[in-house]
Formats: sequence, C-alpha cells, structure tokens
Amino acid sequence: MHLYDTQRSGNAWKVRLLAGFLGVALERTTLSIDKGDLRKPSFLARSPLAQVPVLELDDGRTLSESIAILFYLAQGTPWLPADRFAQARVLTWLSFEQALHMRPLAQLRLHLGLRRDKNPDDPDMTACLAEAHEALRLLDQRLARQGEWAWIATDDAPSIADIALYPYTRMAPLGGIELGPYPQILPWLRRIEELPGYQPLFPGHPELNLSTVERP
Amino acid sequence: MHLYDTQRSGNAWKVRLLAGFLGVALERTTLSIDKGDLRKPSFLARSPLAQVPVLELDDGRTLSESIAILFYLAQGTPWLPADRFAQARVLTWLSFEQALHMRPLAQLRLHLGLRRDKNPDDPDMTACLAEAHEALRLLDQRLARQGEWAWIATDDAPSIADIALYPYTRMAPLGGIELGPYPQILPWLRRIEELPGYQPLFPGHPELNLSTVERP
Repeated sequence: MHLYDTQRSGNAWKVRLLAGFLGVALERTTLSIDKGDLRKPSFLARSPLAQVPVLELDDGRTLSESIAILFYLAQGTPWLPADRFAQARVLTWLSFEQALHMRPLAQLRLHLGLRRDKNPDDPDMTACLAEAHEALRLLDQRLARQGEWAWIATDDAPSIADIALYPYTRMAPLGGIELGPYPQILPWLRRIEELPGYQPLFPGHPELNLSTVERP
Repeated sequence: MHLYDTQRSGNAWKVRLLAGFLGVALERTTLSIDKGDLRKPSFLARSPLAQVPVLELDDGRTLSESIAILFYLAQGTPWLPADRFAQARVLTWLSFEQALHMRPLAQLRLHLGLRRDKNPDDPDMTACLAEAHEALRLLDQRLARQGEWAWIATDDAPSIADIALYPYTRMAPLGGIELGPYPQILPWLRRIEELPGYQPLFPGHPELNLSTVERP
C-alpha cells in the first residue's frame, strides 16, 4: 500500500501511526503544498478533494479522508471493535475530531506556529482558541470517566479514535495551547507514545521536541 | 428508538431522513437552543458534546454525531454497502460533509438567513462563501462522473452519503447560495426527494419553500 502525505500533515500522521501499530508496510510519497504538488493532475486523479492523506491500494484504488482510511485499515484488527454499537461509538469520536477538534487546533498551529502570520489577538485566533479549549475540555472529561487508564472510545484497549485524536492534540502547544491544565491528556498522549510501533511525526526525531523541530 | 433534535438541525434531519427511508419508527424530542435545553443536565447526561442529534436506543444507550448514527442505523440495510472498501468510500463522503461542506453552509444559513446578524461582505462570510462554493463544486464534479443518475458514493442505489450531504446542500439558498450553476446538484436533490419515505424538514410543509417557511 502507498500513502500520499505531506511532511507535517496531522491527518496523514494518523495513517502512519496506525500502520506502525499494525506492523503494516506503507510506501510513502511526501508531497509539498508550497510546490503545488496537491494541485497537479497526477495527484488530483488520485484525490479529487486535493487533500492528503490518500491511501492507494495495491490494485490502484484510492481512499481519501483520514476517517475512511483509518476505518478501512483497522477493520478486523484490535484497533476497531467488531460490535456494531461499539464501532458507532468509535465513529462518534472520529467525527468529533474532524468537526470540532482538528480545525481550531490546526488553524492555531498554522497561523501562530508555522506561518506566524497572525497574532493571538486576531478575532479568528481568539475564536479558534475558545473552540480548541472547549474540544480539549471535552476530551479530558471523556478520558476522566474511568481514571487515568481510559481510552477515548473503548475501555480495555486503544482504538482508532485514540489515533485520530492524538496528532492535533499532541501538536497543540505549537498553536500556543498549554496542555497542563488538562490532567488526563498528557498521560494519555504518553500511553500512546509507549505503544509498540509508535511512529513520530518526523522520522529521525523520535523524541519530538515540538518547540524546536518544527519550522515552516 | 428516540431522537433528540432541534427543529432546524440539518444534522438531525439526516437521521429523520434515514429513518423515513428505512421505515423505522423514531420518537422525537425537539429541544430549543434558545431556551437552553442543550445545556440542561438531563440532556448533557445523554450528550456530553451538548449537541444534537442524539439517538437513544431502547436499552438507554446513546449515540452522538450524525456520522455515527447514520452508520449504526444503516448497517445491514441497502443504505450502506457490505463491502469493506465500499463502506470506506461512503465514510470518505460522510467525512467530507462534516469537515468541508457543512460548516460553511451552516454558518451562511445561520448568519445571513436565520439571525441576519452579518452581511455578505463580512470577512467571515466571504470566507464561508468561498469554502461553500468549493464544496459544492466538488459535489457537483463527483455527481457528474456517471451522468445525471449517479449517487455520491455508490453507483446503483443511494447510500447514507447522499443523506448526509442532502440537508445543508438543500438549505444552501437560505445562506445566499444559488444552486443553479451546479448542473448535477438540483436533479440529485430531486431524486432524493422522490424516494419513498422522504421526510421534509418541517412536517406539515411537504413542499418546503425555503424562502418563506424558515424563520428564526
């Protein structure tokens, strides 16, 4: 299988994390937004949405959107429960991540951390800060339901809901968000990072120091 | 089964549409955002995300997020293919709707159509207009792949991807978006409305006149 990603895409990082945990080999083509790779006809043929990640199967069929790719790869593995209701509960948190969590955190990281083209007082950024803190509060509250060993959508073992919510939570400090006030979140991030097969965002930087490694 | 919704929620409308097409009986409790119903402890106990729709099963378990509810209700029915890859393709479009399509269309409808507290020249609104048109362009392009009888994620019969993308597309004119320039979209909306069991947004207004019926 082949993954089309960009170096810093949190959505594509999810796919690499799951492949790592599953021990599935994934060829990787890393595209550059700045060079216009995502608008080239060869990529648009694979991804009409002009977005990464795209998973290309060995028979050439392609899948877009991280929710769909995670669900596809996890079926039949311990990362997705087989029970119909339990699967729907996982989808609740995959959807929460896309609809409420990712967007404000990604916007803060982009404008305050990477491009540095806005300041935290911009109305856009204050709105994102409020939305991001509300999403993190809900995540923290969810993890608190069973003490510090809970996973997001499942009780005994992690699922793709944990993988989906990991990258943009982990990178929140790049957008100026302190995670300290959320007592459940840092231990949960650490539990994910200790799982066998964990893949860092930047290979070669296994202990990602977000404040120094990531630069535009 | 029991559905908690609000009168105008497009996300909850999806669930009522699917229940109608499936012929599944759904008790309905319609909450009022203005009266603070979504912040009451009785509702938060069912929906920590403080959002509708919430589906409550007969055994008391609850599900949030329209993607999860649609997926749960559609499993084992013609509205969700059984094949693993085909299911993932459906999820691609459910995710597209939540991540790229719903938000700008819902914001335009809220601020330009319902509350009328912004004008189309506001930077927020012009950004939403651009995002909404891009989402509709992608939808139109997707429907064009097989001529006018195509469905969003499937070839021969509609799926929950069509249901998920219907409400906010249908209500786009309330946010000032003309659908005429998208040649595939109006016929696709009509095909959905002609399916047996179709449920209008407001019962009693089977032929929803969006310009006159919906008022805050």
